[in-house]
Amino acid sequence: MGEKVERLKQHLYRYHDVSSAASVLGWDQEVNMPPGGAEGRAEQLATLSAIAHELFVSEETGRLLEEAEAEVEGMDYRSDEASLVRVIRRDYDKMTKVPTELVAEFSRVTSRAFVAWREARQKDDYGLFQPHLQRILDLSHRFVEILGYEEEPYDALLDFYEPGMKTSQVRTLFEELKGGLLPLLKRIQAEGAPVETEFLHRTYPVERQWDLTEVMLRKIGYDFTRGRQDKAPHPFTTEFSHGDVRITTRLYPDFPQAAIFGSIHEGGHALYEQGIPAKFARTHLGHGATLGLHESQSRLWENMVGRSRAFWRYFLPIMQAFFPKQLMEVDLDRFYRAINAVKPDLIRVEADEVTYNFHIFIRFELEQALINGELDVADVPEAWNAKYEAYLGITPPSDADGCLQDVHWSHGTIGYFPTYTIGNLISAQLFDRARKEIDGLEAGFAEGEFKPLLDWLREHVHSHGAKFTAPELMEFEFGETISAQPLVDYLTQKYGEIYRL
Amino acid sequence: MGEKVERLKQHLYRYHDVSSAASVLGWDQEVNMPPGGAEGRAEQLATLSAIAHELFVSEETGRLLEEAEAEVEGMDYRSDEASLVRVIRRDYDKMTKVPTELVAEFSRVTSRAFVAWREARQKDDYGLFQPHLQRILDLSHRFVEILGYEEEPYDALLDFYEPGMKTSQVRTLFEELKGGLLPLLKRIQAEGAPVETEFLHRTYPVERQWDLTEVMLRKIGYDFTRGRQDKAPHPFTTEFSHGDVRITTRLYPDFPQAAIFGSIHEGGHALYEQGIPAKFARTHLGHGATLGLHESQSRLWENMVGRSRAFWRYFLPIMQAFFPKQLMEVDLDRFYRAINAVKPDLIRVEADEVTYNFHIFIRFELEQALINGELDVADVPEAWNAKYEAYLGITPPSDADGCLQDVHWSHGTIGYFPTYTIGNLISAQLFDRARKEIDGLEAGFAEGEFKPLLDWLREHVHSHGAKFTAPELMEFEFGETISAQPLVDYLTQKYGEIYRL
Repeated sequence: MGEKVERLKQHLYRYHDVSSAASVLGWDQEVNMPPGGAEGRAEQLATLSAIAHELFVSEETGRLLEEAEAEVEGMDYRSDEASLVRVIRRDYDKMTKVPTELVAEFSRVTSRAFVAWREARQKDDYGLFQPHLQRILDLSHRFVEILGYEEEPYDALLDFYEPGMKTSQVRTLFEELKGGLLPLLKRIQAEGAPVETEFLHRTYPVERQWDLTEVMLRKIGYDFTRGRQDKAPHPFTTEFSHGDVRITTRLYPDFPQAAIFGSIHEGGHALYEQGIPAKFARTHLGHGATLGLHESQSRLWENMVGRSRAFWRYFLPIMQAFFPKQLMEVDLDRFYRAINAVKPDLIRVEADEVTYNFHIFIRFELEQALINGELDVADVPEAWNAKYEAYLGITPPSDADGCLQDVHWSHGTIGYFPTYTIGNLISAQLFDRARKEIDGLEAGFAEGEFKPLLDWLREHVHSHGAKFTAPELMEFEFGETISAQPLVDYLTQKYGEIYRL
Repeated sequence: MGEKVERLKQHLYRYHDVSSAASVLGWDQEVNMPPGGAEGRAEQLATLSAIAHELFVSEETGRLLEEAEAEVEGMDYRSDEASLVRVIRRDYDKMTKVPTELVAEFSRVTSRAFVAWREARQKDDYGLFQPHLQRILDLSHRFVEILGYEEEPYDALLDFYEPGMKTSQVRTLFEELKGGLLPLLKRIQAEGAPVETEFLHRTYPVERQWDLTEVMLRKIGYDFTRGRQDKAPHPFTTEFSHGDVRITTRLYPDFPQAAIFGSIHEGGHALYEQGIPAKFARTHLGHGATLGLHESQSRLWENMVGRSRAFWRYFLPIMQAFFPKQLMEVDLDRFYRAINAVKPDLIRVEADEVTYNFHIFIRFELEQALINGELDVADVPEAWNAKYEAYLGITPPSDADGCLQDVHWSHGTIGYFPTYTIGNLISAQLFDRARKEIDGLEAGFAEGEFKPLLDWLREHVHSHGAKFTAPELMEFEFGETISAQPLVDYLTQKYGEIYRL
């Protein structure tokens, strides 16, 4: 590595360490913190954000960055060095526009909003969360103003989470996907053979569920010496260093899918983080790239692997051993169809593969309306419920299961939701490739063999760290653009078989 | 509060927030962190320490401090404002002597030393820890050099943990205590009536032990909405904010005292921290004062309360309800004598009240020898074992139960151990006072009433935050100096009765 790039890199170690420390405090806040800690934690996180921000946007960073840019001039776009400098520049140009005081304010507001959201959800009282959401929307507007946009305001926010993609592109992709999904959903509802799911609602003691998720995580390759699993109301993955990538899951006695698919989903995120090369540690390249790419990993493991027949050919006997009374008489076909039952329902994270993306369409549309001033924060519950009625034919009986179900807005991350569907699109593209390139991929799953897939993902996705945007990675690795067709094809084929269409 | 003092206070919020963040990372390291996280965590803690240090020793702090000093000139020594400025000055003068690079180095070395210590202890291999201890000793020498001392090198280290006390004073107090304890121990060993302890080594399922410690903590007044208990190999208390004071304990199936007295001990520390007035939050006064005062609280609750006959008049029936098979036939007298059995043993944290201080004498003497260059790091195990033989007539069969038993040296805290015995001395002085001032204090314990004692401690100790040194607090509140006699009297009376001397 060139001397100037090396100096830039070392200069930013502190920034990365402080950011990682903030991640530890954030994890602790969701997993462990007693309620009394909220006020102090909000201050601590605000301070760490402000310090990280100051360290990053300092003139020293700017100076070293310019020197490093001169040094990498003419180097291969895809090289580690050029990529590191390019990614830092992208972030630097964005961040230098944001005043430190706004960063601290954002951190303080969202720390409190998270606590308020948790209480509001517990008490099913949107009013407790509403003023916090208003503050977050106000801050989002300030970010839009400061960061600017070419086509529409939402672009400025989307760019935080999915650099390299515009709202208009996403809208087009989503419309294509909607066009493929709506007829499929209608056919399933009109002509689908009935799927029995009663046995998934028997009582599954949560301790055994916990143990089962650990077995699955170990089997797919999650390294517990470099991570741990905990319980949290909203499952998430967080990375503190190359050697410490943690996930959370949640456990319901009468709904084992929450833990199983929650753990595999977060496990997918964690496999990505654990697969980032150590050489990128403490740099801008040392984590997964965009959120869409991240979600492509979690959804690939959750759905294409975890909800496949082959996966359960291996795991059903194990799950039956954990829960003999509940499952011993259930055969693979019944089980496979049950965990893939399509049913328009209220909760995004527990939605089946066919209806899942409608949950995202709804949030994407509401967020745009909020940002464009077409929707008031006070009217969110009503608008939410109306969209659920329109898209899925159901109305949430409570805000807890409606607009309060997701943690995201309390984190201030407006513009984040569409990355879930972008991830779904990419997951189908990747899985389609992997199937073609790996001999007997699914036959391997049936034997408990997941390493060929993990190795393939390590090579084509994880090894790049955060070097490329999602469109870049798809282009460089596969010569493809992001598209909706592979997901539509995958779902049509899979659910055509399940529902005997 | 005066304008200048207020400005100084606000200037230091960042410093306190970063320090608290480091505490969260430290807690996580001992309670949750997977082994793979060690390297990254060491860097993060080093960075946070360095940033906190820089924030604190900045010229800006110096300038604001001088202005604040002018403002509090002539104010009552005991006022909040004068005390805040005085305590910051004491710390500032010390810290400005220490270069930031040394602080970061100390943090890095001790993060790694902790991980090495844990492994060394598990594998009973002192060699794994020795190079780390050497590095810590070298750093301690650098601190001594930088900080300077009047009488002897150890003073410079002691002053970190027990400001206001000199090694020579401590030595004198310890000699007095030794003079009282040695004859008591000899009489117990020679003439004491036998004490039966077999029933304490039956199998006590750890889940129930855990539940019992929670009941006890709630009963003595520990507020779980502002704290939590976890498991860790070495019990400790840590404070992140006024509303988040956490403790840890450890559980052994055949030794329930470890959890019971460990939890009450840490609970005593935590009651102190939870009792610090909210007005001191995010300042130098917002936590317990010296380590000796801190230990006076934990030991008072652990010993004078938790090992008293009155305490168990209330709690034995509860413990019997948790463990009927193990304890139902044991009466209060047998139980009370068993938990107070005096037996020279290897492990400090599980030592009885009579032999406990010998463990401290040993560490205090070894540390002085290390610092004075009279003892090589390589010879610590041998010297350790020789002292145990000399004072307690026992030789550790392994270093895991010998010089590797305590976490402290891995944290780099040479000079810390004597504060344990200072705390014991003060706890006896405080308890002597409380008994005289609170009507029916111990009759209350027997009814499960601990609030009168907690209120008394809140008033006389907790309410002051970190305003005073230990000698100051004893002088201002009670007109007393720290002395050994009350502890000798308390132990002589208590153990005279237990051993029927």
